[in-house]
Amino acid sequence: MIITIGRQYGSGGHEIGKKLAEKLGVPFYDKELLARAAKESGYCEELIVSQDERPTSSFLYNLVMDAYSFGSSGPARTELPMGQKVFLAQFDAIKKIAEEGPCVIVGRCADYALEDRDDVFSVFISADPEFRLSRIIEVKGVPEDKAEGLMNKTDRQRQSYYNFYTVRKWGMASNYDLTVSSSKLGIDGVVNLLAATVQALEK
Amino acid sequence: MIITIGRQYGSGGHEIGKKLAEKLGVPFYDKELLARAAKESGYCEELIVSQDERPTSSFLYNLVMDAYSFGSSGPARTELPMGQKVFLAQFDAIKKIAEEGPCVIVGRCADYALEDRDDVFSVFISADPEFRLSRIIEVKGVPEDKAEGLMNKTDRQRQSYYNFYTVRKWGMASNYDLTVSSSKLGIDGVVNLLAATVQALEK
Repeated sequence: MIITIGRQYGSGGHEIGKKLAEKLGVPFYDKELLARAAKESGYCEELIVSQDERPTSSFLYNLVMDAYSFGSSGPARTELPMGQKVFLAQFDAIKKIAEEGPCVIVGRCADYALEDRDDVFSVFISADPEFRLSRIIEVKGVPEDKAEGLMNKTDRQRQSYYNFYTVRKWGMASNYDLTVSSSKLGIDGVVNLLAATVQALEK
Repeated sequence: MIITIGRQYGSGGHEIGKKLAEKLGVPFYDKELLARAAKESGYCEELIVSQDERPTSSFLYNLVMDAYSFGSSGPARTELPMGQKVFLAQFDAIKKIAEEGPCVIVGRCADYALEDRDDVFSVFISADPEFRLSRIIEVKGVPEDKAEGLMNKTDRQRQSYYNFYTVRKWGMASNYDLTVSSSKLGIDGVVNLLAATVQALEK
């Protein structure tokens, strides 16, 4: 089974995904996806990192471009704005990775990229703001006075990115097979819950 | 532990709650809550049923009334519109039920009514539209040509009711401790998952 994990910033989605992948003995992709997308697409990794999970600079411009680009007679990808080119490179890399077998993929609209597969289990991790703030300060080393601003800004970016490219709503329960609060269950509690659920589904 | 269950119409939230309560050996409240609210408040049960989980007739009127009613110097509850009186009667009944010990409560913003307690586990059940439609037709006996309209209307009502009274967003993952798709896991799969999770939390 391929597990996709969306997550609020500071909720421990990265750590949960990594531990889950270890427990299940499958590959793990978070930032690792960027190197893969670079390799597949030929774009340099720095460019992909710079556009990663960020809303594009101008939504309006992209909306106009969309009208031209996604029709069969539209211009080729080379004429898309950079944010969309990077999104599509990641989208293609996610599809290729999924072809290779079971794995855990964090972020990058992977649930949407793989929505046509029936071997995908899509997850979203949330947590109380207090839990997330303390993790942002302690685990990520962000200064206390910057933590709340960074948390809100990062989630706004993830939400805009997801909602723009998927035409779904980021963090809405009905988009996902399962969502869970890491502040309620704890990081290891969530890992155990997900591993048990995936193993039950595979039987 | 007190388990609250929000649910999309047709997702099997009622059946899941009932089976979970049986499995855990605790009382179950769905429509049962209405008789209790009637008993506690003195309103007749028919009135409570007529207003149950429905947005009030005029949001604008209620907004105006709100400005008067929730200040300490405002008029008493007797001057509130009926929808709000019934909401408050249910709200009080939910709090009293929770005082009596572990139970399962479906709908009626119970997660919000009990948000100050730390022995609450709040759940939301979603499911694919196809799964929900077939349940609405087969389990609830709704004619095929009415099922989709009823599904959308009921969810719109639940959403308006929840969002109006709680100032949260119905179905948003971050409001709940856990959300799960019953079309992915199956009704019994969800019951087993919830029972195992609650038992792990109680340890």
